[in-house]
Amino acid sequence: MSGWVKIAGLGPGRDDLVTPEVTTALEQATDIVGYIPYVARVAERPGLTLHPSDNRVEIDRSNHALEMAAEGKRVVVVSSGDPGVFAMAAAVFEAMEAGPADWRNLSVEVLPGITAMLAASARAGAPLGHDFCAINLSDNLKPWDLIEKRLRLAAEGDFAMAFYNPRSKSRPEGFVRTLEVLKEACGDDRPVIFARAVSMPDEVIKVVPLSQTTPEMADMRTMVIVGSSRTRIVERDGAPIIYTPRSTPA
Amino acid sequence: MSGWVKIAGLGPGRDDLVTPEVTTALEQATDIVGYIPYVARVAERPGLTLHPSDNRVEIDRSNHALEMAAEGKRVVVVSSGDPGVFAMAAAVFEAMEAGPADWRNLSVEVLPGITAMLAASARAGAPLGHDFCAINLSDNLKPWDLIEKRLRLAAEGDFAMAFYNPRSKSRPEGFVRTLEVLKEACGDDRPVIFARAVSMPDEVIKVVPLSQTTPEMADMRTMVIVGSSRTRIVERDGAPIIYTPRSTPA
Repeated sequence: MSGWVKIAGLGPGRDDLVTPEVTTALEQATDIVGYIPYVARVAERPGLTLHPSDNRVEIDRSNHALEMAAEGKRVVVVSSGDPGVFAMAAAVFEAMEAGPADWRNLSVEVLPGITAMLAASARAGAPLGHDFCAINLSDNLKPWDLIEKRLRLAAEGDFAMAFYNPRSKSRPEGFVRTLEVLKEACGDDRPVIFARAVSMPDEVIKVVPLSQTTPEMADMRTMVIVGSSRTRIVERDGAPIIYTPRSTPA
Repeated sequence: MSGWVKIAGLGPGRDDLVTPEVTTALEQATDIVGYIPYVARVAERPGLTLHPSDNRVEIDRSNHALEMAAEGKRVVVVSSGDPGVFAMAAAVFEAMEAGPADWRNLSVEVLPGITAMLAASARAGAPLGHDFCAINLSDNLKPWDLIEKRLRLAAEGDFAMAFYNPRSKSRPEGFVRTLEVLKEACGDDRPVIFARAVSMPDEVIKVVPLSQTTPEMADMRTMVIVGSSRTRIVERDGAPIIYTPRSTPA
């Protein structure tokens, strides 16, 4: 049995943000599994079978990948960004833990990628240059109360914050409440970055003071980064630079 | 004036974790600036000047990079990992903000990289698969009280935690106190990952229950990741897999 699963991060979208490690894995694969738009990024070639699947079937997709590896296939599960950050790696390990005992000894590797918050941060400057939290705002898989608790604690700790999945059509109210909580908890008018389609031709980076943010500024393709109380705005020709200094005075 | 500065992330160490975007920037550069071991990763070639410098001179190094760009040079500032996470990007923007007004309109770009916590997480499984915090444990640039406050809030919020710069020879006591705070605040025996020299030939990944951690398990080349209360250990032949499930029940 020489099959394997590699759970690979494709980065935010542009090809030159894919690591050579991931490119090599895609070249060695017999099968590619993943959400439709990510599988579409892999070039077709003889000997390679593409298995695109819809959103919200992460466990089915993981089971399929592990089954094929158990049959000797070389399977790459593609994620956007980094597979370990709100993406496919945890799903594959959930499926492995719940599945047949022999799946545990399959060769399964995670190949890191450029996750959305780092790509977005780079385009804005360095808003995550000091301590920060990453929070998935989707309440599909956790109760809203826990999200709100984490937002309030992150604000109390003066962490910068990076939000994944801020707003979907099916649950627009979560991000409305997120902005309400932040406006109340942060106590100042810190910068908020809305980074949409980072690295792609339709990329848009907007910087808005917290008091002027509105829920419509985000959708599911938007990464939202909220600065800490120390985050600076450097005005210049063109877009300003947003960064969080490395030091906090005593 | 056609000079520029690109602040580039070299990833955790292995060459196949460097993005093609960064490789291209290194090929186009006239000058490379950075901490000695990172500059040593760039191949010498005619037309390229290497400017290695010691640790803790980040602002001098940033000034030098911006001065050279103002003279028309194409300067890459190299960082390990991602330049935006506890690395050179914030330092360059601090120098830009404090420097001559015309520096603000220089072309300065951040090129993201695979930051240490994502490389370490990938090697262990997916411990950062749910909400998490990234905290720099060095108290060179911030008071210890703020670090302790953030540790306690992160534990209260049941975030997974990733610690950069856990322990140096000159200030070994900070990590002693960090482990004491966590043992008190977490209230359970969650897994802690010590990931040293990730992706390099001397890589060592250790997983230790919080109650059995000792300060000597970390040094400045170690990334420390602490699971949340939900983090799972999947035993298997060889190293176990550590992952944090995507969902939290209500």
